[in-house]
Amino acid sequence: MPKALQPHPDRALPAGEARDLARRIHESTRSLPLLCLHGHVDANLFAADEPFGNPADLLVVPDHYVTRMLISQGVAPDRLGLPRRDGTRTAEPREIWREFCSHWHLFRGTPSRYWLEHEFAEVLGLTVAPSAETADDLYDEISARLAQPEFRPRALLDTFGIEVISTTDAATDDLAPHAKVGADLPGRVIPTFRPDAVVHLDRPGWGDLIGELGRLAGTDTSSYAGYLDALRKRRQAFLAAGARATDHGHYSAAAIPLADAEAERIYASALKGEVTTEDAAAFAGHMLFQMAAMSADDGLVMQLHPGVLRDHHAGIHATYGPDQGHDIPVATEFTRSLRPVLERFGYSEGFRMVLFTVDETTYSRELAPLAGVYPSVRLGAPWWFLDSPDGMRRFRELVTETAGFYNTSGFVDDTRAFLSIPARHDLARRIDAGYLANLVLEHRLDEDDAFEVATDLAYNLAKTTYLT
Amino acid sequence: MPKALQPHPDRALPAGEARDLARRIHESTRSLPLLCLHGHVDANLFAADEPFGNPADLLVVPDHYVTRMLISQGVAPDRLGLPRRDGTRTAEPREIWREFCSHWHLFRGTPSRYWLEHEFAEVLGLTVAPSAETADDLYDEISARLAQPEFRPRALLDTFGIEVISTTDAATDDLAPHAKVGADLPGRVIPTFRPDAVVHLDRPGWGDLIGELGRLAGTDTSSYAGYLDALRKRRQAFLAAGARATDHGHYSAAAIPLADAEAERIYASALKGEVTTEDAAAFAGHMLFQMAAMSADDGLVMQLHPGVLRDHHAGIHATYGPDQGHDIPVATEFTRSLRPVLERFGYSEGFRMVLFTVDETTYSRELAPLAGVYPSVRLGAPWWFLDSPDGMRRFRELVTETAGFYNTSGFVDDTRAFLSIPARHDLARRIDAGYLANLVLEHRLDEDDAFEVATDLAYNLAKTTYLT
Amino acid sequence: MPKALQPHPDRALPAGEARDLARRIHESTRSLPLLCLHGHVDANLFAADEPFGNPADLLVVPDHYVTRMLISQGVAPDRLGLPRRDGTRTAEPREIWREFCSHWHLFRGTPSRYWLEHEFAEVLGLTVAPSAETADDLYDEISARLAQPEFRPRALLDTFGIEVISTTDAATDDLAPHAKVGADLPGRVIPTFRPDAVVHLDRPGWGDLIGELGRLAGTDTSSYAGYLDALRKRRQAFLAAGARATDHGHYSAAAIPLADAEAERIYASALKGEVTTEDAAAFAGHMLFQMAAMSADDGLVMQLHPGVLRDHHAGIHATYGPDQGHDIPVATEFTRSLRPVLERFGYSEGFRMVLFTVDETTYSRELAPLAGVYPSVRLGAPWWFLDSPDGMRRFRELVTETAGFYNTSGFVDDTRAFLSIPARHDLARRIDAGYLANLVLEHRLDEDDAFEVATDLAYNLAKTTYLT
Repeated sequence: MPKALQPHPDRALPAGEARDLARRIHESTRSLPLLCLHGHVDANLFAADEPFGNPADLLVVPDHYVTRMLISQGVAPDRLGLPRRDGTRTAEPREIWREFCSHWHLFRGTPSRYWLEHEFAEVLGLTVAPSAETADDLYDEISARLAQPEFRPRALLDTFGIEVISTTDAATDDLAPHAKVGADLPGRVIPTFRPDAVVHLDRPGWGDLIGELGRLAGTDTSSYAGYLDALRKRRQAFLAAGARATDHGHYSAAAIPLADAEAERIYASALKGEVTTEDAAAFAGHMLFQMAAMSADDGLVMQLHPGVLRDHHAGIHATYGPDQGHDIPVATEFTRSLRPVLERFGYSEGFRMVLFTVDETTYSRELAPLAGVYPSVRLGAPWWFLDSPDGMRRFRELVTETAGFYNTSGFVDDTRAFLSIPARHDLARRIDAGYLANLVLEHRLDEDDAFEVATDLAYNLAKTTYLT
Repeated sequence: MPKALQPHPDRALPAGEARDLARRIHESTRSLPLLCLHGHVDANLFAADEPFGNPADLLVVPDHYVTRMLISQGVAPDRLGLPRRDGTRTAEPREIWREFCSHWHLFRGTPSRYWLEHEFAEVLGLTVAPSAETADDLYDEISARLAQPEFRPRALLDTFGIEVISTTDAATDDLAPHAKVGADLPGRVIPTFRPDAVVHLDRPGWGDLIGELGRLAGTDTSSYAGYLDALRKRRQAFLAAGARATDHGHYSAAAIPLADAEAERIYASALKGEVTTEDAAAFAGHMLFQMAAMSADDGLVMQLHPGVLRDHHAGIHATYGPDQGHDIPVATEFTRSLRPVLERFGYSEGFRMVLFTVDETTYSRELAPLAGVYPSVRLGAPWWFLDSPDGMRRFRELVTETAGFYNTSGFVDDTRAFLSIPARHDLARRIDAGYLANLVLEHRLDEDDAFEVATDLAYNLAKTTYLT
Repeated sequence: MPKALQPHPDRALPAGEARDLARRIHESTRSLPLLCLHGHVDANLFAADEPFGNPADLLVVPDHYVTRMLISQGVAPDRLGLPRRDGTRTAEPREIWREFCSHWHLFRGTPSRYWLEHEFAEVLGLTVAPSAETADDLYDEISARLAQPEFRPRALLDTFGIEVISTTDAATDDLAPHAKVGADLPGRVIPTFRPDAVVHLDRPGWGDLIGELGRLAGTDTSSYAGYLDALRKRRQAFLAAGARATDHGHYSAAAIPLADAEAERIYASALKGEVTTEDAAAFAGHMLFQMAAMSADDGLVMQLHPGVLRDHHAGIHATYGPDQGHDIPVATEFTRSLRPVLERFGYSEGFRMVLFTVDETTYSRELAPLAGVYPSVRLGAPWWFLDSPDGMRRFRELVTETAGFYNTSGFVDDTRAFLSIPARHDLARRIDAGYLANLVLEHRLDEDDAFEVATDLAYNLAKTTYLT
């Protein structure tokens, strides 16, 4: 007999004495709208508003949390349908789905399992757990659901209670999908300005992107000054399309400005295709500082998430491209790295910086002390590998005592998996409810304060951080 | 109606099954005297024994835990009365107090709130919580209390049950306040020798300090040998004034000796005002080694707390001076850094070294393994940002399994805020009681042992570490 | 009256609501055999099968966890009978035992105390706790036990339920003891190939070892090619003697291959006794890569445990030799260090790598992300200072959410203390039972899954990692 799928109403709440209060605190946050201001869902999804495809292409193939776990236990990437750069793809959706279902036990104890159970039960209405035996039935059942109009992306925005969702867009994106969806749903799907590709001078194809950047901005990017000008103009275009924030994924948090002449020299060397690795890294750090300066001018909230070595396996990258689960964190330094930016803009009225990390060692040592004194700094929600029950609990325990609650950004999900968004917000609200309940039970927080803080963490802080 | 201020008798004790035992363990330590051997209260306070000033100047302005939180949420330093180096100060005490009270919610979940509630309720006898509405009444009520003779500093030493309190004093302090208070209260208020200012050759004003050092010691400090001799003599003067320890706040824990000739060369370059940053750093590390050598000779306990980038924001430092909440920790290394000192003095009879950190990653990796084998090493109490409920709990969990209890120094507070001392000791005793109770409930420690350890952590270990 | 020694049946299980389920999960794993595949017990023990010596030489002198704690509180190494390299030893076994017993309180809260209580009560049948008063009686009682035939090493293999135990053997060991015990107990006591001494070119005596290596392998090691060939042949000899794994204890995890010519140059310089420290370190990293290549060929599981500064105190090392408790961890880097190996062999069918660390900061940041995607990588059990109740709990909490359960190696002990093996496995099973019970109570794992996972962690995963 197949195993039932029954996410427990009290899941991820603390056991024992704190459960009852945690349940009540969680309950008080359930109907709050979702603010999804750090996501990676594709804007075209909402522009086109077409039915989702099959279960594999919705739930397995694009979710690197899922594929990396299956790969780690010996399932070949091709059997999971990872699209090869050469355009070939061998596995059929139903075969991919079977691989996933027959390895369901691998996800025990992981947030992926938690989110998927929530999606299966509460979004898709499934009642049995994935397994080799149930795979085909589940495939058919999900496919039938996805064909219904209430499972189209825009309908789900309402079902999920999403007030605002932001996408992530390159500096060279033309924002056409946002124009389309913005006309229908004003202010609800907004872009985020992510200039990573144009500030890393040594990435393949940089020269072409710079040309495109100039064309879009109506600026000549063959000089460093023109390049800066183009970035300023693109930021204005994003602002006009509703953007509230920028997003920066750098290897290092170093934001160290160069002298103008030095920046010009490096930029010129890149145009000639002769930039060195060292110069490119220095220029990237310089541009982080420049982006802070532009944010202090135009008010876009600056989000920084450094410290990941992308595409750790060159062969996987060559065959399947980026974002395939082979990004591995490294130790990250913030105190020295951000000093120039914070000395210059840390007290600026219009500047706001949200810091993310996958290096937990910086929570109590560097991030909480920085956010706990600089008016411009907020700590982003636990990010990526740390967006998990114990990861989120450790974040609160390591950050709150120095930075308090009000120097954190509130929960923002960080996902490409649209269907997982309610599960992610709900999980964060549960973990925060448990953390707050424990503080109350240890008489370290008043009960009425706990309810107020829970609403702030679930909704108000994201609003004040990003939307005001 | 204003909110009542009622610190719960069971605050900071574990919830659930462990509460009862934790309460009994805590109770057994409540009447133990306080040993305050790592503090920064000003000796003049006890020499003069005058009434404290107004609430703002007692509880807000000098407490950088408090001001940094308010600043982080946009309250300008000037509105908090931070004294400018140019002597101006704009905010009135009552205005400062109102700012603090109206932002009381920011401190939720922080140890500052915990300590302040304890001070308000148990030291000052207040009954309502701070808020915009209650600010003025509280101001008047506290002011009235502070005018009473039982709130003078010396009277509070008795009220608080402080057996010994140490201050922190520069090598160039003349110890006159200690002479005065020592005559009245022998052995109760003792100095600590902190030579940071004279071993960092590149700090502004170093030349003048060296002259002062020579005058106080009756030694010619125009040579490196004379400088060392002056330090030795000042240590003797501190010993004569009752000092039991030295205190060293370096950026790095590196304690690497230089050849004499090299030390002489660098010292000479500093006298000429030509020392390089690299040389100054090397000399500071060299002097840590020399201080260890002197401690091995004269028996002063050597306290080291490295790993903080001081005055992160140059502008704040220029306007308001040091110690204004803008000190941010950095990753710290102990294993290699302390090797020369420990190879030389780690087994010396008369040498004792107490290690503090704000980099928790070193607890289980470096500090506990070092303290767990070298006879001369003790681990200091969780320090600064980590002197908090969860911070202290993590310290025990990360340290005890390798170093045991008896290689830790016992609790010592680290504060400029005299009124917070009982709250800090009490909080530490509560957290240790909870940790011990949990060990007993998990049958990892016998109950009678837990009571014995609790007394050791609260009193005996500080006594044996510093006073024997 | 002496204190009774009564390890509680529920020891190291969580208190509160989770206890009952944790107890049932633990109970379900109690009868599973022990797989001891990372140990350091001497093969001669089983070859000779002679009675153990006195209590001090069995339980104190060779256990650096025990001696380091006693040393840290001022007991001189000589009073603990640490054998001096010059062959002298001053303390009598009974005197050593008295030192140990009279300092029993030092071990409160440590895993040593936990293991020893288990050994005393459950293996040796003692009923009173060690103390100055009970020392002599306990000495006599243990001595009497050890004289009985059921306390001989081979008999204890059965008593303990040890299915397979591996030893650690240098590349230059002749494996004669394994031949002897292998004839009697085929496949039960197997060697592990540990080539550290022959890949670190700057260690004293390296030249002699290389000669010995060549003789044993029948290969001329006066060239780099011959050296590699000798290593390949020794690996084959180990495989023939039943080995399943290699073991590599390097200062750094760097596994960076050199060009052949560069490796040859460094090797030749070492043969002439002229190798530099930098070259030797580069060669060690190169050889880690070569060992990975050989493992990909011959199927020996590659175990890596980097990040320990060995022999921190030169004087102790000079007098007493290595492995005397003066090894101190350092911060360790895996992401960049292992990239060359994982790019080359991370997807190789025959390659399996087990990673250990004493730097917990790498659990969630680097190790779990690596193991959670590379098919060849498994995370080893919490190692050395971290093989403790809270250490093992943190391992699960920091690793599971990213790597799941099935990318961990299952429990393997890491000890020289044969009598502690059942205690160590039992403790790990208790901690895992508690962790799993908490997941179930927080509705993050189904109860039937928890029981299945518990068996996997206690037995099946070690089997599939090392023996299949």
